[in-house]
Amino acid sequence: MFQEKGRVTIPTDVDVVKETVELAKRWGADAVRDCDGTEFPLELKDAGMKVYSTYYTTRKDNAWAKAHPEEIQQMYIMTPIRTAVGDLLRIRLMEGLYPDMLTPNTRDDITRWWEVIDRTTGEVLPSVEWSYDEKTGEAVIQSIPFHDYSVSFLAYILWDPVHMYNAVVNDWKDVEHQLTFDVRQPKSHAYTMVRLKRFIEEHPYVDVLRFTTFFHQFTLIFDEQAREKYVDWYGYTASVSPYILEKFEKEAGYPFRPEFIIDQGYYNNQYRIPSREYKDFQAFQRKEVASIAKEMVDICHEHSKEAMMFLGDHWIGTEPFMDEFQRIGLDAVVGSVGNGSTLRLISDIEGVKYTEGRLLPYFFPDVFCEGQDPVREAKINWVTARRAILRKPVDRIGYGGYLKLAVKFPEFVDYVESVCEEFRLLYDNIKGARPYCVKTVAVLNCWGRMRAWGCHMVHHAIYHKENYSYAGVIEALSGAPFDVRFISFDDIIENPDILKDIDVLLNVGDADTAQTGGEIWCNPEISSAIKEFVYNGGGIIGVGEPSGHQANGHFIQLANVFGVEEERDFTLGYDKYNWENHEHFITQDTPGEIDFGQSRKYMYALEGTTVLEVGDKELHLAVHEFGQGRAVYISGLPYSFANSRLLYRAVLWSAGSEEETCKWFSTNYNVDVHAYAENGKYCVVNNTYEPQTTVVYRGNGSSFSLALEANQILWYDTGE
Amino acid sequence: MFQEKGRVTIPTDVDVVKETVELAKRWGADAVRDCDGTEFPLELKDAGMKVYSTYYTTRKDNAWAKAHPEEIQQMYIMTPIRTAVGDLLRIRLMEGLYPDMLTPNTRDDITRWWEVIDRTTGEVLPSVEWSYDEKTGEAVIQSIPFHDYSVSFLAYILWDPVHMYNAVVNDWKDVEHQLTFDVRQPKSHAYTMVRLKRFIEEHPYVDVLRFTTFFHQFTLIFDEQAREKYVDWYGYTASVSPYILEKFEKEAGYPFRPEFIIDQGYYNNQYRIPSREYKDFQAFQRKEVASIAKEMVDICHEHSKEAMMFLGDHWIGTEPFMDEFQRIGLDAVVGSVGNGSTLRLISDIEGVKYTEGRLLPYFFPDVFCEGQDPVREAKINWVTARRAILRKPVDRIGYGGYLKLAVKFPEFVDYVESVCEEFRLLYDNIKGARPYCVKTVAVLNCWGRMRAWGCHMVHHAIYHKENYSYAGVIEALSGAPFDVRFISFDDIIENPDILKDIDVLLNVGDADTAQTGGEIWCNPEISSAIKEFVYNGGGIIGVGEPSGHQANGHFIQLANVFGVEEERDFTLGYDKYNWENHEHFITQDTPGEIDFGQSRKYMYALEGTTVLEVGDKELHLAVHEFGQGRAVYISGLPYSFANSRLLYRAVLWSAGSEEETCKWFSTNYNVDVHAYAENGKYCVVNNTYEPQTTVVYRGNGSSFSLALEANQILWYDTGE
Repeated sequence: MFQEKGRVTIPTDVDVVKETVELAKRWGADAVRDCDGTEFPLELKDAGMKVYSTYYTTRKDNAWAKAHPEEIQQMYIMTPIRTAVGDLLRIRLMEGLYPDMLTPNTRDDITRWWEVIDRTTGEVLPSVEWSYDEKTGEAVIQSIPFHDYSVSFLAYILWDPVHMYNAVVNDWKDVEHQLTFDVRQPKSHAYTMVRLKRFIEEHPYVDVLRFTTFFHQFTLIFDEQAREKYVDWYGYTASVSPYILEKFEKEAGYPFRPEFIIDQGYYNNQYRIPSREYKDFQAFQRKEVASIAKEMVDICHEHSKEAMMFLGDHWIGTEPFMDEFQRIGLDAVVGSVGNGSTLRLISDIEGVKYTEGRLLPYFFPDVFCEGQDPVREAKINWVTARRAILRKPVDRIGYGGYLKLAVKFPEFVDYVESVCEEFRLLYDNIKGARPYCVKTVAVLNCWGRMRAWGCHMVHHAIYHKENYSYAGVIEALSGAPFDVRFISFDDIIENPDILKDIDVLLNVGDADTAQTGGEIWCNPEISSAIKEFVYNGGGIIGVGEPSGHQANGHFIQLANVFGVEEERDFTLGYDKYNWENHEHFITQDTPGEIDFGQSRKYMYALEGTTVLEVGDKELHLAVHEFGQGRAVYISGLPYSFANSRLLYRAVLWSAGSEEETCKWFSTNYNVDVHAYAENGKYCVVNNTYEPQTTVVYRGNGSSFSLALEANQILWYDTGE
Repeated sequence: MFQEKGRVTIPTDVDVVKETVELAKRWGADAVRDCDGTEFPLELKDAGMKVYSTYYTTRKDNAWAKAHPEEIQQMYIMTPIRTAVGDLLRIRLMEGLYPDMLTPNTRDDITRWWEVIDRTTGEVLPSVEWSYDEKTGEAVIQSIPFHDYSVSFLAYILWDPVHMYNAVVNDWKDVEHQLTFDVRQPKSHAYTMVRLKRFIEEHPYVDVLRFTTFFHQFTLIFDEQAREKYVDWYGYTASVSPYILEKFEKEAGYPFRPEFIIDQGYYNNQYRIPSREYKDFQAFQRKEVASIAKEMVDICHEHSKEAMMFLGDHWIGTEPFMDEFQRIGLDAVVGSVGNGSTLRLISDIEGVKYTEGRLLPYFFPDVFCEGQDPVREAKINWVTARRAILRKPVDRIGYGGYLKLAVKFPEFVDYVESVCEEFRLLYDNIKGARPYCVKTVAVLNCWGRMRAWGCHMVHHAIYHKENYSYAGVIEALSGAPFDVRFISFDDIIENPDILKDIDVLLNVGDADTAQTGGEIWCNPEISSAIKEFVYNGGGIIGVGEPSGHQANGHFIQLANVFGVEEERDFTLGYDKYNWENHEHFITQDTPGEIDFGQSRKYMYALEGTTVLEVGDKELHLAVHEFGQGRAVYISGLPYSFANSRLLYRAVLWSAGSEEETCKWFSTNYNVDVHAYAENGKYCVVNNTYEPQTTVVYRGNGSSFSLALEANQILWYDTGE
C-alpha cells in the first residue's frame, strides 16, 4: 500500500511554528529537527512528528573544557620542511597556522611525543639535538647545513575546526571559541555520560538524539589568514592524545612514533599507500570509538530514545563500513548528499534501522535570495542522488537550514513536495528488493570496503582536477546496474577466494597511490592472483595508471593483462606501431568524441592490443584479451551519462557478456532502467533536464519506445 | 686574410668527374669524398683536392666473417616478458625479431651467458630450471603459474643493422647480407690491421681514411616485418661478446651478469639512471675501444694518411667527450648535422685537428626530385646549424650523396655556393676566438660530459613527443651566448668545487630519469651541495620535474629551492592559493602565449614563490629566491627563438645579472649577436626566413637600429 506521508524530515525554528506544521503536511514530513543555529519550538513537540535533536558530544561545554585543559583534544601537526643554512635551525611551530585554533602541547613530555626529523636523510634526531623555546615558539635544532628538517608536534585544539569554519564563513562576531574535549580520556569520558543523561532528561520531548558526531573531527586546519589550509575528510590526525597513543602502543605491542601519524606531512591521506602501523592504528581507533560510542547509544536506549549518527564532522573512527561500527548499536545514520557516491556512503551502511539523506540545498541565505535559483539546485541534487537511490535507497530524506527562507520561495516548496512524493513512491516500489544487477564488480585498492564509495574523495564531494577523472568511475558505479564491492589487496591475501564471485575488477587511479596499489604489485600473491583471475575468464578494467609502479621492466605491472604501457622515457627507443582506432562493442553507444578528462599523456598499446581511441599518440581506450579473460584500459573517465554507458559496456564486454546488454536497458544513455524482480516493479528514469525518447528493453529482451518528460520517472509492473 | 677557397668537402662518383671539378671550383671545395653506393673516379686523384675514402672496419668482408663465425659480432637481447599460465613456459627467443638479422649464440655456454629472470620477483632462475630447445628456438622454463619471465640471450648479428636498414629503405634486391665481425677478438683483430694496411697500399691516392666507424654499432634492431623495432643511438647492447665480457669481468673484479646490459629490457638507455656496473662497463669499453682504434690510426699515420672518424654507425665506445678518446690520436671527426645540438656534438670535440659537419640535405632522390625543394631544406639546415657554428664552429663543412642529382638543381648549386662563402668568412672571423659568453651554465644530470649536447636524444635528432620540451633547452643552449658545460652528479661527489665557476645550473627532464637524477637526490652530498650553491648566490633553472623523486615528504626534492611542488595526489588536502601571474624580467621579451610544450599537468607554486605563468591550475613558470641565489622553474621549453630568449633571460635573472642583458644583444629575439673580442669582430645574424628589424647593443651598451634581410648575417669590427 502506497504511503502518502512519512520518510521526510523537516527543519524548524521558533519563528516558523505555523509554517512548519503547514509544510510538514504538504511534504508529508513525519520528523522535525533543529539545526546548528536554530532552536526547537516546544509548541511542536506534540505535532505528531518525531523530534530530532542535534547533540554535540565534544563541544558546546567550554566550562568543562576549561576546567580540564589536559583533556582538550589534540592533533598532530608537522611544520613546513625547512632547510638549515648553518648548524642551528629555528622552526616556528605555528608558522602558517591560525594562532587561535592551535597551541603546542608542552604539558606532555615533548621528547616522547614530538619528533624532529632530518628530511634529507629521513633520520630522527635524538632529543638532545633539539629543544623548544617557549618564548619564541620555535624548535631549536642542531642542524647539518643544507639538510632539511621538520618538527612533528602535538597541539591542543582550542577552537573546534567546524565551529571556527562556521564562524569565519558566517562572519560571526564576538563568538566564544568552542573548545573540544576528548571524550576518550577518563574524566571527560565519565562526564560525557552524565552530560548525555542530563540532556535527555532535560529534553523529554526529543525522540532521536542526532549525534554530531562522536569524538574525532576529520582533519581540518586553517592558515594564518583563517583560510582553509588542509582538509581531509578521512583524516585521523586529530584523533590522538598521549592517553590514546599509550593505549595504542600497548595494544600494538611496538613503540609508537609520531611519524605513524605525520607520514612526512602527508598525514596518511587516502592516496597514500597505508603503512602497517597506520592500519593498526585505525583498527585500534575503530574498536575504541565503537566501544565508547556504544555507551552513549546504550544510554539513549535506556531512555527509550533513538540514536542517530551524523556522518560528518567528528565522525572519524566510526567507519560505518567496518565490522566495529555495528557494535555501536546505532538506530540510524544521516548524512549530506552531494552526488551519487555520497548518497551510497550513507545508504550502503548496514546494521542500522534506517538511513537518511540530507538533500541540498540548505535553506541558507546564499541560495535563498534574489538572483539565485533554489529550485534548480534542488532539481540537480535530487536527480543526481536519485540515480543512486534507485540502486540502494536511503530510508528517509530530509532538509536542513532556516525554514523561513524556504517559505519565501513557493516554487521551491512545490518542488520539494513533488520530490517527497516521488521518493515515497520510489521507496515503496523498491524497498527490500535487490535491484537487477547484470554483473558483480569490485573496485580493488588498498582500502577496500573501509573507503567504499569515498575512495577518490578528499573533502567529501569536492572537485579536484587531479581526481575527477577517477572519481567519475565511482560516481558512475553509484547508479549502475551492478552489485558493487570494494575490496583491498589485504582482502585478497587473506582470502584469494574473494575473487571467485566477482565478474569484473576495477583498478582506478594514479600510479603509486593507494587507489592503484603501487609496489603492492610486486607481491606475487597479488599480481599472480589477479593475472590468474583474468586468465581464467575474469574481467578487469583499469583507469588511469592501473597497477602502475616502476619495477621489473614494467611501469604498468599488469602490462601483459591490459596490453598497455606508459612511456616514462625508458621505452622511447622502442618503436610503437599500434595507433589505429577500431570500432568496438564498448564504444557503440558513444560515437564521436569521448571525454577522457585529465587523460594520461603517454600511454601506449602493446602489440596484440586493440586500440579503441587514441589521440596524438596518446592512448585513451583499448581492450586486450588475456587467456579466457578480458581487460579494458581507459585513461580517465569523468562522470557523465555517456561515460556511464561506456563503463556499462566495458563491464559487460570484459565479463564476456555482451549478449546481456539489452536487459532492463535503455538505448538512450540519458535514461536508466532499474528492475526489482522481488517487488515485480521496474522503472524508467530520465536523468536529464530535457525530454528524452528511448527504446526500453525488458529483462526478457522485449522492448518498447518511450518518450519521457524532463527528469521523469515512470514505474511499471514486471509481470508482462 | 680571408680564405676564398677551402673548408668544404664535395661528394663525387665515377659519372660526374667534370661536374665535380666545376662545382668544386664554385664551392671552393678542397676535399672530395666517396659515399656508400658511389665510387671514387681515379681521374680526380690529382685534381688538387684531398681525397677522403670511407672505410668499414667491421663489415664488407663476408669471406672473413664466414670463415670465423665465432668472431661474428654479438648483442644482448631480451625476449618480451611473458606470463606463465602453468608450470612450464616456452618463450621463443626470436619472437618479434627479424629472422635474418640475428641468431641465438649457442656456441658459448648458455648457462653462463644467458639469463632467465622471474620478472615478477626479479630473481634469476638457476640454470637447472630452464633449457633451450634448438629445434623450436624456445627457452623452456620451469615456471610458477602467473609469474612473468624473460630470457636474456646473446645473439650473433648476421646482418649489419645499418646495411640492413639501407637495403630495406632503398629496396635493394638480392644483396648479400653483410656480416659484422668483432675486431676486438683475437683473429679479427690481427686480420683487421693487415686488411687496413692492404687497403691503404691499394689506394695510394687516398689522403684521409674516413672510418665508418670503428667496432660497435649503436643498438638497432628490426622486427619480423623488417620495421625498426628498437633504436638507441647511445646503446651499448651490441658491443658484447663472451671474449669481451670475460675481460671486463677480470678488470671489474666482480662477476658479470647479462642483466648489467639487459637492464630489464631497457638496455641502459640514457634515460635510465646508470648503475655502477654499467658505468664500469662503459669505462672498460672506452679504454678497450680507444686502444684498438689507436692501432688503426697509427697504421694510417705510418702511411702518412689522416684518420677521420664518422660519428655514427659503429661509433659506440669511442665517446668523443671522454678522456680516452684523445688517446686514439684521430686527426678529424665528421658527423651529420641535424640541428644545433648535433652540430655541437661534433664541434665541441677536443683533441682532433679538425671537425667537419655534413650538412643536409643528402643528394638523394627523395629530396632531389620533382615537387621537392632542396633549397628550402638546405636553408633550414644551414640557418639552424649556423646558430651553433657561431658559438663553436666545425672546421669544415661538406655534403654527401649523388652529385649528379644536385647538378640538376641550379638554384641549389647557387645556394650551396653562398653557404660555402658565408661559412669561410664566418670561420675566418671567429676562428681561435672565444665568443662572448655572458654566463657559464652547466647542465646537471647523471651523464655529464659523456652525453654533452645529446642528453635528450634517442636516435640522434629524432623528435619524440615525450622529450622535445626538454631537448629544446639543449637546442637553445647550442646557440646561446653561454659557456655551456655538462656535469654529472658523480662529478660533484668527486669534486664539489666544480660548482665554483658555474653561474647557473640546469636540471632538465622527467622525474626518476638520468636527466634529473631520481633517487640520487636522496644523497645529501648532492642535495646539500646544490642547495648550498644556490644559497650562496648561484642560479638554478629546473625544467619539467627537476630533482623529481618521491621521498621524505617531497616529490621535487629541491622544493625549498625552486619553491614549487608537483601534485601527485598526496597533497590534494593542502589548499593552494598561489595562482596569480606576475610580470617579470624573464618574460619581458615574450609577452603573450608562451609555448611550454608537453607541460607537466600538476605543478604548483609554494607560498613565497612568484608565479609568472599559470594556466588552468597548472604552473608553467615561476621564480623563487633562496638565500642569495635564485631559482627558475619552467614546465617545459620546446625550441623556438622566443623560448631561447626566455631561457637567456632566465639565466641572467637567476645569475642576478639583469644589468648584463643588453650587451651584444638584439632586442628582436629572431636576431642574434655574437662577439669575438680576440678577433675584434662581431656579427648580427637573422635566424629567420623573413626580413627583420632590431636594435643591436654592443658590449659597451651603445646601440643602433638595423634592418636585415632574410637569413642575413652581417659582420662588424668591435673597435668602435
